[in-house]
Amino acid sequence: MASSLDSLEGEIETQNALFNELRLSGSDPAGLEEVKKKLGELKKSLGQAKAKAAADGATASGSKEVAGKKKERILLKTAKGTRDYGPAEMFCREYVERIVKDCFSTYGGSCLDTPVFERKEILAGKYGEDAKLIFDLMDQGGEQLSLRYDHTVPLARYLAMMGGTNTQSKLWQVGKVYRRDNPVMSKGRMREFSQADFDISGTWDPMIPDAEIISLICTILSKIDVGEFTIKMVFSRYAVYPQTRLGLFLLLLTNSTNFPDKIGEYVKHKGGPELLAKLLADSALSANPSAKQGLDDMGLLFTYLSAYNVIDKISFDMSLARGLDYYTGIIYEAIVDASAPPGFKANPSVGSSTTPSPALPKKKVTKKVKNEDGEEEEEVDESQVGVGSIAAGGRYDGLVGMFSAAAAGDSKKSATSKGSIPCIGISIGLDRIFALVWPKWVEKGKRSKETMVYVMAAGDGLLVERMKLVKELRDANIKVDFLAKKKPKLPVQFAAGERDEVPFAIILGESEIKEGYVMVKQQKWEMVDGKKVKVLAEGDEKGEKVDREQLVEWLRATQTWKDWEDGKL
Amino acid sequence: MASSLDSLEGEIETQNALFNELRLSGSDPAGLEEVKKKLGELKKSLGQAKAKAAADGATASGSKEVAGKKKERILLKTAKGTRDYGPAEMFCREYVERIVKDCFSTYGGSCLDTPVFERKEILAGKYGEDAKLIFDLMDQGGEQLSLRYDHTVPLARYLAMMGGTNTQSKLWQVGKVYRRDNPVMSKGRMREFSQADFDISGTWDPMIPDAEIISLICTILSKIDVGEFTIKMVFSRYAVYPQTRLGLFLLLLTNSTNFPDKIGEYVKHKGGPELLAKLLADSALSANPSAKQGLDDMGLLFTYLSAYNVIDKISFDMSLARGLDYYTGIIYEAIVDASAPPGFKANPSVGSSTTPSPALPKKKVTKKVKNEDGEEEEEVDESQVGVGSIAAGGRYDGLVGMFSAAAAGDSKKSATSKGSIPCIGISIGLDRIFALVWPKWVEKGKRSKETMVYVMAAGDGLLVERMKLVKELRDANIKVDFLAKKKPKLPVQFAAGERDEVPFAIILGESEIKEGYVMVKQQKWEMVDGKKVKVLAEGDEKGEKVDREQLVEWLRATQTWKDWEDGKL
Repeated sequence: MASSLDSLEGEIETQNALFNELRLSGSDPAGLEEVKKKLGELKKSLGQAKAKAAADGATASGSKEVAGKKKERILLKTAKGTRDYGPAEMFCREYVERIVKDCFSTYGGSCLDTPVFERKEILAGKYGEDAKLIFDLMDQGGEQLSLRYDHTVPLARYLAMMGGTNTQSKLWQVGKVYRRDNPVMSKGRMREFSQADFDISGTWDPMIPDAEIISLICTILSKIDVGEFTIKMVFSRYAVYPQTRLGLFLLLLTNSTNFPDKIGEYVKHKGGPELLAKLLADSALSANPSAKQGLDDMGLLFTYLSAYNVIDKISFDMSLARGLDYYTGIIYEAIVDASAPPGFKANPSVGSSTTPSPALPKKKVTKKVKNEDGEEEEEVDESQVGVGSIAAGGRYDGLVGMFSAAAAGDSKKSATSKGSIPCIGISIGLDRIFALVWPKWVEKGKRSKETMVYVMAAGDGLLVERMKLVKELRDANIKVDFLAKKKPKLPVQFAAGERDEVPFAIILGESEIKEGYVMVKQQKWEMVDGKKVKVLAEGDEKGEKVDREQLVEWLRATQTWKDWEDGKL
Repeated sequence: MASSLDSLEGEIETQNALFNELRLSGSDPAGLEEVKKKLGELKKSLGQAKAKAAADGATASGSKEVAGKKKERILLKTAKGTRDYGPAEMFCREYVERIVKDCFSTYGGSCLDTPVFERKEILAGKYGEDAKLIFDLMDQGGEQLSLRYDHTVPLARYLAMMGGTNTQSKLWQVGKVYRRDNPVMSKGRMREFSQADFDISGTWDPMIPDAEIISLICTILSKIDVGEFTIKMVFSRYAVYPQTRLGLFLLLLTNSTNFPDKIGEYVKHKGGPELLAKLLADSALSANPSAKQGLDDMGLLFTYLSAYNVIDKISFDMSLARGLDYYTGIIYEAIVDASAPPGFKANPSVGSSTTPSPALPKKKVTKKVKNEDGEEEEEVDESQVGVGSIAAGGRYDGLVGMFSAAAAGDSKKSATSKGSIPCIGISIGLDRIFALVWPKWVEKGKRSKETMVYVMAAGDGLLVERMKLVKELRDANIKVDFLAKKKPKLPVQFAAGERDEVPFAIILGESEIKEGYVMVKQQKWEMVDGKKVKVLAEGDEKGEKVDREQLVEWLRATQTWKDWEDGKL
């Protein structure tokens, strides 16, 4: 079945190896002869295939690639703007992701999973200028496809496809999204990056879903312990839909000649409830029905945020109005003080007007630099803008309706007509959170593996005995490993267990097996001068004899085990 | 900043809505006039932009798309061979994934994450004929990229990049892979599908990693409860590397004239230890050094599998030798009886010779059918082949070395030279497992959400009080929800809580709040004639008064809570 040069070459290599092995192992001459004959045939086929490939030349894409391959060195690297995450990093990332997902379901969310690529027309017209950053797939016959740019548009497409059967829901998505942006690897801006989204769809009473979303992001950031943070609120450019009267109010301010002398003053405002008090005290504002409604909504939101006990995290910034094309109301950004740009100070004092967001178009301070391939690329001078917000979101009441209308072929249907579902959501930049959490883990010398027990044996290896105990413990849901060697020396086994920083070393011996017990050593690691050092438990240098029958219970009852479960190890 | 027709149109819609809103809310005429003026300017810009787009014609790709858009109806669907997974399905899938990941770490594995796309040359030459199924990205300047086809090749690329610093490890990956195959949605064969991989790399003593992998897959399939299953072993076509003497032995059998009259007999064999006994009893085989070595290894493997207590799951099938180009030893397949093709019976009797695997090339019984778009496509007649294996894997000792050699530009370096790392792994088809588990969940009427408590209020809504209690419970890590309405009627709130099948309904009232308690109703659902029916706990029709201060402890102490934690609800 060898159809390509590659598989022919592979088969020849196979037969060559077989031939050598047979010769060395003293096989019979007839067998050797047979293999030799087959080898000859294969080499002949390869010659013919190579000639054909050369004749087909550059037109046959498959052959061309193979023919040119041997001369070219493979560049052993990941695609531009992407990277691998190895075991230690992934242990931390999985930890972060678990907290985020757990908070999502604590807030009543259900998981949604959409494909990593969409039909191109689904993404078209949703991202304004940034559409140029969309990754397209090659048209290999059939559909024009693009990698998803965010989770919001696929969610809206999903809700529109559900045709109103899922009009009131809390949905979350965790996964990677793709932007053909200029990557700045060192600062964590990637072409492939992870976002965790939580969205509330449906018609609810004003400001309640908004307050839920803000409370949620505050809960998550507190649990992950990213340090002090502020939720900054700005206004979208398209704040027009029924549930966004607050945004409308702001639009009114900036569009109306009603308060010509005040606009400059209003838009400078930043802050929380004290800002509202200031605005309410302005009789000119209160006299205007639209403004009054806006102020009422702001008051409602602040009341709810007080009930959720997160009001001190909020800073309204009335100087900005921006966002992606699909945003229709308030836009939220979570900014961690540690990651804030120079000059940014947390609520309630002065906010920043330059903080970029992973989801929002931004002004960039750029310079040309050479990348690793020698190509010139723009590098954002992040020292000027900080690493930016770690979560961003907002209200997008028109997006689902836009899909429903387009699917119905009705260009006159406005986004506010039937088939429309108001939505509000937030996207959490998991990579940025990881970038904050990971250095702390390294500094604290946190473990990067969950293995609790390493099973070893002295003397003759006792491999089968080790396997039996390993299986027994694993069946009890204990994370166990051992060295996959038949007769490894004890120090080698200890070294392997120490590489995993296992809290328990169990040593099997012939006589102990007969008598029905095992030796257990408890091990701890502590950071000393920036290095991990093993510390044996007091009086445990020699280990402890434990009844084999009681082993699982004994392990779980130790302080070491409890410390691990409490996250202290 | 409106640069495209889309954003201009969006802005016009915004201003239109604003204008109407202002008019209705009785805004001042001056303000109205200003909005009207802006509207006029925008419409003028739109006209100019449209004229320009028409002049640019079909050559400007961006404009073309926008200009043609209004006429075309958007097809509201996911890309061919992909699908969304909604809340209930995802709840089940997340459950399966958690078990798999947990087993992976119980077996000493660490997580690895690689990008969803790779440089095209990384995938080239690894998949033989199936290379035509690789999804390519459009070349948008820079690199030629392809979506990953499996997790094995990216893992080998990662190990080669580590340059020998990670030569002995157990790594797992869970994520989606992509194949431009003909999808058969109804049978669960997709172009985007989820695989969970576990791989052991490094030079270990013979058959120990092999036994670990087989024990692991048995543990996972038992925990997920997919029903009876068999691990079928077949031999790879390229069984040549040092750690695969067993494969070599089989290759020897089929290549040698040593046992001309026996070959037909040997290759018919299927089974476990009794097969080995039969082969060992053959003096002609034992007299041959290579065959003897192969039999010794088979004996070792069976000894280890007995220690792991999984020997009864094994069936060797000596009639087959196949696999992807990179496999070098034994290939494993896990076949669930429920999904086995007609005629397949579990170990130790007769194995199937037609069972396909998601990772292995297969003979297909195909027929032409029209798909939903009216295009003709091949549909595999799955009734002829069964839904196939749910996990497959094998040894690939040459793949990492192939990358190391290619990166060094040394085409003469064989895959067995320095830089090579022997590997063995297994890929679990999560979609196929889900296809087995999901119908059982539906039948049993399992919950599809984790929300434990729904907080409600009678009378005036008590929204802020509800929010405070909700926050309190969420802070205690209890999954809670409530209706995002200001003054919802009690039956509406109950209905919403019942939709989530929450075990606890908590009702707030003015007087109860003052007196410091809440009313709690415990609710259970049972399947009656295939429908979910709510059953109130005995004597709990009116609910129970619970001290607000003790609420969290009280909830956790109930039998209902324990039942949920035990997986009974």
